[in-house]
Amino acid sequence: MPRTVEITDLLLREAQQSLLETSMALEDVAPVFEDLDNAGYWSVECWGGTAFNSCIRFLNEDPWERLRTYRRLLPKSRLQMLLRGQNLVEHRNFDDSIVSRFVEKAAQNGIDVFRILDALNDVRNLRASVEAVKKAGKHAQGSICYGPSPVHTITAFVDIAQRIREMGCDSICVHDVDGLLKPQAAYDLVKGIKQKCGSDTLVSVHTHSTTGVTMVSLMKAIEAGCDIVDSAISSLALGRGHNPTESVVAMLEGTGYESRLDIERLQRIKRHIAKVRPRYGELFHQPIGVETEIFQHQIPAAVILSMEYQLKGQGAPHLLDEVLGEIQNVRRDAGYPALAIPASEILGTQAMFNVLRGKYKVITSEFADLMLGYYGTPLGEKDPDVLAKAAIRANKPAISCRPADLLEPSWEPRRAEAVALGCNGSDEDILTYAMFPKTATKFFQTRAAGAKEISRELSEAKSGPEPAAPGSASNNAGPSRSYIISIRGEEHRVTVTPAQ
Amino acid sequence: MPRTVEITDLLLREAQQSLLETSMALEDVAPVFEDLDNAGYWSVECWGGTAFNSCIRFLNEDPWERLRTYRRLLPKSRLQMLLRGQNLVEHRNFDDSIVSRFVEKAAQNGIDVFRILDALNDVRNLRASVEAVKKAGKHAQGSICYGPSPVHTITAFVDIAQRIREMGCDSICVHDVDGLLKPQAAYDLVKGIKQKCGSDTLVSVHTHSTTGVTMVSLMKAIEAGCDIVDSAISSLALGRGHNPTESVVAMLEGTGYESRLDIERLQRIKRHIAKVRPRYGELFHQPIGVETEIFQHQIPAAVILSMEYQLKGQGAPHLLDEVLGEIQNVRRDAGYPALAIPASEILGTQAMFNVLRGKYKVITSEFADLMLGYYGTPLGEKDPDVLAKAAIRANKPAISCRPADLLEPSWEPRRAEAVALGCNGSDEDILTYAMFPKTATKFFQTRAAGAKEISRELSEAKSGPEPAAPGSASNNAGPSRSYIISIRGEEHRVTVTPAQ
Repeated sequence: MPRTVEITDLLLREAQQSLLETSMALEDVAPVFEDLDNAGYWSVECWGGTAFNSCIRFLNEDPWERLRTYRRLLPKSRLQMLLRGQNLVEHRNFDDSIVSRFVEKAAQNGIDVFRILDALNDVRNLRASVEAVKKAGKHAQGSICYGPSPVHTITAFVDIAQRIREMGCDSICVHDVDGLLKPQAAYDLVKGIKQKCGSDTLVSVHTHSTTGVTMVSLMKAIEAGCDIVDSAISSLALGRGHNPTESVVAMLEGTGYESRLDIERLQRIKRHIAKVRPRYGELFHQPIGVETEIFQHQIPAAVILSMEYQLKGQGAPHLLDEVLGEIQNVRRDAGYPALAIPASEILGTQAMFNVLRGKYKVITSEFADLMLGYYGTPLGEKDPDVLAKAAIRANKPAISCRPADLLEPSWEPRRAEAVALGCNGSDEDILTYAMFPKTATKFFQTRAAGAKEISRELSEAKSGPEPAAPGSASNNAGPSRSYIISIRGEEHRVTVTPAQ
Repeated sequence: MPRTVEITDLLLREAQQSLLETSMALEDVAPVFEDLDNAGYWSVECWGGTAFNSCIRFLNEDPWERLRTYRRLLPKSRLQMLLRGQNLVEHRNFDDSIVSRFVEKAAQNGIDVFRILDALNDVRNLRASVEAVKKAGKHAQGSICYGPSPVHTITAFVDIAQRIREMGCDSICVHDVDGLLKPQAAYDLVKGIKQKCGSDTLVSVHTHSTTGVTMVSLMKAIEAGCDIVDSAISSLALGRGHNPTESVVAMLEGTGYESRLDIERLQRIKRHIAKVRPRYGELFHQPIGVETEIFQHQIPAAVILSMEYQLKGQGAPHLLDEVLGEIQNVRRDAGYPALAIPASEILGTQAMFNVLRGKYKVITSEFADLMLGYYGTPLGEKDPDVLAKAAIRANKPAISCRPADLLEPSWEPRRAEAVALGCNGSDEDILTYAMFPKTATKFFQTRAAGAKEISRELSEAKSGPEPAAPGSASNNAGPSRSYIISIRGEEHRVTVTPAQ
């Protein structure tokens, strides 16, 4: 009897976040709900992460209403969300009164599985969420943020997993945001977790296809006992997205493992998404290809792009390689936080200042907070000199407690503000406001107009340059095209370059 | 000590053939020769297959001269070619006098490794080439064309491998043109070959990334003892091409296996190819994605596209699925030839006639030849009724001998014709003529003009529609773009739609 390997589908949330410039409109995904709900997935990830913000910012749509719609139209599915621990769906810490209320409301509105992670792997940042999830009677999946470093050995990761398990999590997720998880590491890590936490501990592996090796990592994780893997339908997969679901199903055939997925339903989903995808922009104008360079510096391409842009603004685009090298030093000085958002951005900016202005001559307030423990405690030792400089810069002491312990309960003041600013009085609205006060305030005013017909709008607006391969000469200006055009009977040869 | 896994590079030949509309101009690949030659590949595939024809047809370039250039500029590398057995670099049989001369000249001009295959897996079609390769003192790599069928079991493939090995081949290649080789099959097949042919038998695996599972298949093949795998540099990989070399290197890290490749050289090659790739068209306007549908019917997308086109011409585009189903019947009737060119095309056309005109009411002459054994003998039993119809249609008997045994030696007549038509009198020119009489004749007349500056030409001509996802509304007409252009000081708004 083959062992069943379960699949978590990412189409409704992270596949869109990884590959498209925005979340897809409900009208474009609604036609696949029946197939999604019956295909045989373990869970359907559909909420949390950047999708929450994207709803109010780009779609003029209530994220809670979107969740209720998913709940209604996917009645058989376990709905899953990504929760950034104490950061919830933002990149800053909230106090426990907000965290517990957010989890309670997410559960009430339809979430069954909470995947909870902290970029620094400081498990104290998971505790309040995990407790709230358990209180709501839902599934708490505690995550390890994967990113190797001299201190982030397999043993260290397995220890973190054990602490997450002991906290009461129902499953453990190995969470790899950049495709850094190589096959052997995947095997060793899952094997180690199963050995240390017990073979009945559900283990899930989340990775990206960025580097071209992670299909193999999924296979190795499965061989080591992994129970659940994440994938996305092939027409919204690959590149900086995820491994294609149909390929995962095919990969298992004839092995000692099998999925429960209905391939005909998958193919219908594939075809529909292929049809609507062109209505959306592509993030980064992604080339067909892989980025194995990330193994060297672990910096996500989005962060590199943003650094390139900033360096250009400083008239120093030639310094990019030096900055990428300096990030490694800054990361070491900071005790090796995982290079996930927000740490990756904080380290990147600090490295840029170090290269442009001299080593720690300028210290950003975010980097000072990171050094001083206000995001949590990373695994490695921090450099004492840099720590001292950060304390002077920020004019506050280093802390060793759980950062959220320093925060006052803010539910009541946030509620009062949100009501004054025109929210509908629901706890959900107040939480939306607590997350994103500015965007939420604007949304409360425009909500009555209804969700944007985003796909039509994008379809009409989309007239940018075609995607070009990386390093292509045409990357900057867009490709020139020559046409022979006829105006009042006279022929002209015209070369046009999109103005961007 | 990790075991070394060797890599064959496909950049110079099949990666181009799989992904681009033409072969790349020498000027565009020349800058990577030094890195290619020193990166640590087992061999560099650079000649044969469709590249030969492409040289004279599109580049006005002597393929033999191209080979000598590769030899000169890649002095340290084993140069490898794809030879289609008795078909050489065409899709029809040649007599042994042509076959032996072709191999002799290819060896003299620089080929070290001859990868030899027959679409029907009729090993008799490999014999003359293998003997000629051994006579020239070069490496003969005999290939199995992989494509599962009720008769094409792992055991059957292993038997074929054994016969190839006994013929005197120096290595065995598992050759999978469409990404059909799933991980477990890859493992079982390589394991079986090693057991049956001896563990010292070099085994190579060639596959495509079409279905998204074959990176895993390479890993499994390696675990089973595979010595050499094929890959292409990442900036000319994936889609219907091959698995990316840099990812293969990363995949092995920390396992019991390692490559000898120099990652810095690979990254330089990657960057250069990424820069020049946009000068060439993309075959099929490939979507980012995978095609797992091919597991159901085994028909290469190029053949499906051509059938779609033909069905449209017949006013019956809705019959495509029926034709794809009928191909399976026709394949069974023909004794399960592998669905590689030319068999895939022959079966596809016959299936189309069966659907449009009634079962075997019309029989193409190629299908009759295939049924009657004039391409060789497939593994399965043929349907006796269809065989009888084919014999009536073709008005000739079925044969069971090696097809080339029926061919008269044609070296002398071909030589006389080629000389009369303006070839330079070299054996190489005569062979070019023997392969492609029409194209060669034209080439002999235009050769003096020199190779086309293809990349500049393509760059200027390239004004087609941007690649769109499959099923996109913009697939047919290409996107319209509006521009404000100024001619002699007067502004005009112009909307242009590429004419295709």
